[in-house]
Amino acid sequence: LRLAELAELVGGEVRGDGERRVDAVRPLTAAGPADLSFLLRRSFRQQAVASHAGALLLGPDDSADPALAGRDLLVAADPARALVAILGALHPPPVHPPGVHPTAIVGAGCEIDPSAAVGPYAVIGEGTRIGAGAVVSAHAAVGRRCAIGAGALLHPQVVLYDDTEVGPRSVLHSGAVVGADGFGYVSRGGVHHKVPQVGRVVVESDVEIGANSAVDRATVGETRIGAGTKVDNLVQVGHNVEIGRGSLLCGQAGIAGSSRLGAGVVLGGQAGIADHLELGDGVQVAAASAVFQPVAAGAVAGIPAVEIGRWRRRQALLGRLQEMARTLRALRKRLGEEE
Amino acid sequence: LRLAELAELVGGEVRGDGERRVDAVRPLTAAGPADLSFLLRRSFRQQAVASHAGALLLGPDDSADPALAGRDLLVAADPARALVAILGALHPPPVHPPGVHPTAIVGAGCEIDPSAAVGPYAVIGEGTRIGAGAVVSAHAAVGRRCAIGAGALLHPQVVLYDDTEVGPRSVLHSGAVVGADGFGYVSRGGVHHKVPQVGRVVVESDVEIGANSAVDRATVGETRIGAGTKVDNLVQVGHNVEIGRGSLLCGQAGIAGSSRLGAGVVLGGQAGIADHLELGDGVQVAAASAVFQPVAAGAVAGIPAVEIGRWRRRQALLGRLQEMARTLRALRKRLGEEE
Amino acid sequence: LRLAELAELVGGEVRGDGERRVDAVRPLTAAGPADLSFLLRRSFRQQAVASHAGALLLGPDDSADPALAGRDLLVAADPARALVAILGALHPPPVHPPGVHPTAIVGAGCEIDPSAAVGPYAVIGEGTRIGAGAVVSAHAAVGRRCAIGAGALLHPQVVLYDDTEVGPRSVLHSGAVVGADGFGYVSRGGVHHKVPQVGRVVVESDVEIGANSAVDRATVGETRIGAGTKVDNLVQVGHNVEIGRGSLLCGQAGIAGSSRLGAGVVLGGQAGIADHLELGDGVQVAAASAVFQPVAAGAVAGIPAVEIGRWRRRQALLGRLQEMARTLRALRKRLGEEE
Repeated sequence: LRLAELAELVGGEVRGDGERRVDAVRPLTAAGPADLSFLLRRSFRQQAVASHAGALLLGPDDSADPALAGRDLLVAADPARALVAILGALHPPPVHPPGVHPTAIVGAGCEIDPSAAVGPYAVIGEGTRIGAGAVVSAHAAVGRRCAIGAGALLHPQVVLYDDTEVGPRSVLHSGAVVGADGFGYVSRGGVHHKVPQVGRVVVESDVEIGANSAVDRATVGETRIGAGTKVDNLVQVGHNVEIGRGSLLCGQAGIAGSSRLGAGVVLGGQAGIADHLELGDGVQVAAASAVFQPVAAGAVAGIPAVEIGRWRRRQALLGRLQEMARTLRALRKRLGEEE
Repeated sequence: LRLAELAELVGGEVRGDGERRVDAVRPLTAAGPADLSFLLRRSFRQQAVASHAGALLLGPDDSADPALAGRDLLVAADPARALVAILGALHPPPVHPPGVHPTAIVGAGCEIDPSAAVGPYAVIGEGTRIGAGAVVSAHAAVGRRCAIGAGALLHPQVVLYDDTEVGPRSVLHSGAVVGADGFGYVSRGGVHHKVPQVGRVVVESDVEIGANSAVDRATVGETRIGAGTKVDNLVQVGHNVEIGRGSLLCGQAGIAGSSRLGAGVVLGGQAGIADHLELGDGVQVAAASAVFQPVAAGAVAGIPAVEIGRWRRRQALLGRLQEMARTLRALRKRLGEEE
Repeated sequence: LRLAELAELVGGEVRGDGERRVDAVRPLTAAGPADLSFLLRRSFRQQAVASHAGALLLGPDDSADPALAGRDLLVAADPARALVAILGALHPPPVHPPGVHPTAIVGAGCEIDPSAAVGPYAVIGEGTRIGAGAVVSAHAAVGRRCAIGAGALLHPQVVLYDDTEVGPRSVLHSGAVVGADGFGYVSRGGVHHKVPQVGRVVVESDVEIGANSAVDRATVGETRIGAGTKVDNLVQVGHNVEIGRGSLLCGQAGIAGSSRLGAGVVLGGQAGIADHLELGDGVQVAAASAVFQPVAAGAVAGIPAVEIGRWRRRQALLGRLQEMARTLRALRKRLGEEE
């Protein structure tokens, strides 16, 4: 595509040669004359100046940088959003030809839309429905009575246990396991009696679940992941957890059973949420933190997590501990208490 | 089933209409007139009162609650235990018809009990034995010379490496990998020489292992998970680890190589145990804690973990740090030391 | 093998009966008369003395221990390194007969070396190359245009997304997912727009990746794991991460997007690295720590991680907090400030 075409695509403006041909998008340090690169964070300015990229995507402010004068620029009001569109145009996702691969095993009573694709060696249980344009990739194991919405994409080796629902356009990456039994036992005299986990999981629309993440079915009722929520790799979602719309769970985060997260919640990497807690809309949990109390609003950090301002003050005080100990010793000495 | 039948099943007592028909068990907030719900924790009392459930399972104390007068109740001495039985009766687990699916590939010299079920596309190495009523589900990959006990259940896509033993009635969830190489290298001059991992894993009877958990084979000898121990999702068990009977490892916990856990040990979610440590019977490790020293008994918390009482006192002191700093400043001022 | 043969293999020396036959290597506590065991850490000396092992591998210092007099010993200058060689000799890895299993599905335009082995039900996308002696085990799902180097080993159910490169002799354990989409979104008004992840992953030579680990493809450009680096189970490597040669990432460690680790870096178990950070060559991160700042050199610990000496001093001060609080109270009282 020509730079001018990309500018039109994103409603941006070309400074320089609009006829310049762009073959691919590459990082600043790797891009060559046939590539477009991008400057989204001020901290990458130096790399942008030094880059051999044929063209640069950036925002209005950065485009005024004298060090970039003479470069072919694509100026967009929202360059991050523009990058999304450009990547999609230059790197269209692979096409999955519709149809059920002859090696796929499909149980009785399934309804598979003719435009859906079911890959080699996929195994699908009885009574499952697969919507228009949905893709169930190689080796996926889909249980009985599941529902996979239109345009949903299950990468190779995704597992859905019985009765799982995956909403339209949701994407599940390889190794994701949705609907396995929750971790529920009644312990009596050192013996753990399994509580049958007879509920299910509902993954709403436009959700993405990362590689090797696990979302457990409810004991009774539902575990639910709200529309537009994005879940990174190796995340654990316990039974009966409910997550609102548009939340973000970063890598290796974990949520114990029955906790409820509102809309727009953000869990940093490796963050943990104890069981039976409520986190309000927009709550943010810092990476490597662990939440043991409900959080109505705002940001928390630490183990156990506290309001983030309090956490910062505490960190500052911890940095002064040595000085405090020294002062205390000096005072004691002065008062003749030191022997 | 009728409420009276359920009462008989669990040795409980009906208050109200024993003829009431119960179709399913549902959570308090979702249950309707044809459902049984349950009140196991006092904190759910409000929800119980407001619930539209046709019948409620609860303990003797809660059954005396005037706000529940007139409801159809199933009163059980141990309502949690009763719930286990009722869920099992109302939601029997799926039946796996015995036999080896024609697409399964079974190596030479395997002994598969005629009552066992081997699912589509399962691959089983030479010399493996599968006991009566055991289930090896779709896409499972079982190595050579493995032993799978009677009534054991491997969900889709479980992997057992060569020589792994799974005891009777143990359940492995999808994505669990048992017997992969331990993380052992001899490092010389910046090069990490792999130590061949030639031991094996023994999972004893009545164990449950969660989705996407990993249990490594021993370098030499055995990694062993004791009878009745339950392991949640995404848990890491290193090589040569030994875990006693009836322990509970919550989600994302990890145990480094050669550590030994006694019976009835509980690891909270995301808890970590360093290598070559011993944890005595009944030791409890709080969630998001990391243990770097042996623990003979009791409960520990924190990073590094300390006895939990000490941890609590330390947390209380941390909460007073600001006040301490202020007092110290005031004292210095008073003594004319502040410049 | 006879003890003398093992000694010759490792350039060691026999004390005692060189004709003694060794069938296997077993741990000190499990070894019998036909077994060799080993003493690599002084802390196992007692177990060595009590062991029933027919022969013991140890270093020159330990071999002088009077309590081991009369035992058949194999003395090696570097007993750990010798153990690697002996385990390899006594327990040769399984042989994978070359050829493509008839049930494997291989896309158009693939180049598979005749000496490579492709297992049952493996699915390989178009245009992928597999080198001499490489092994792609059962149920592996390899994408399009991948390159798998000579002697590489993919255990059952490994997933490589499109365009992934795995270097010679690298080993990927079951459940490892390499090349899934990075966690990248542009969020506007509560909606998370997916940034197409169009880069790829390069795993260089002699790398090992543990069970159920995930390495994400780059947004643009490459995620790269350097030669000889070893990655344990359940490790998360984010998009555009670069890891140098000979690093070690222990179980459940995680690295957020775009961070760069030098050569010989060591991440302890459950350690976390925030995004866009640089860790210099040889940096060591303690287990259960979280790094939020760049680290040029040395060792760090804690959440947030600080230089390890500073962390140790702080831990010591935390241990004295109660005493400090008490002293402070006493001083206040003495000064008549306590009411």
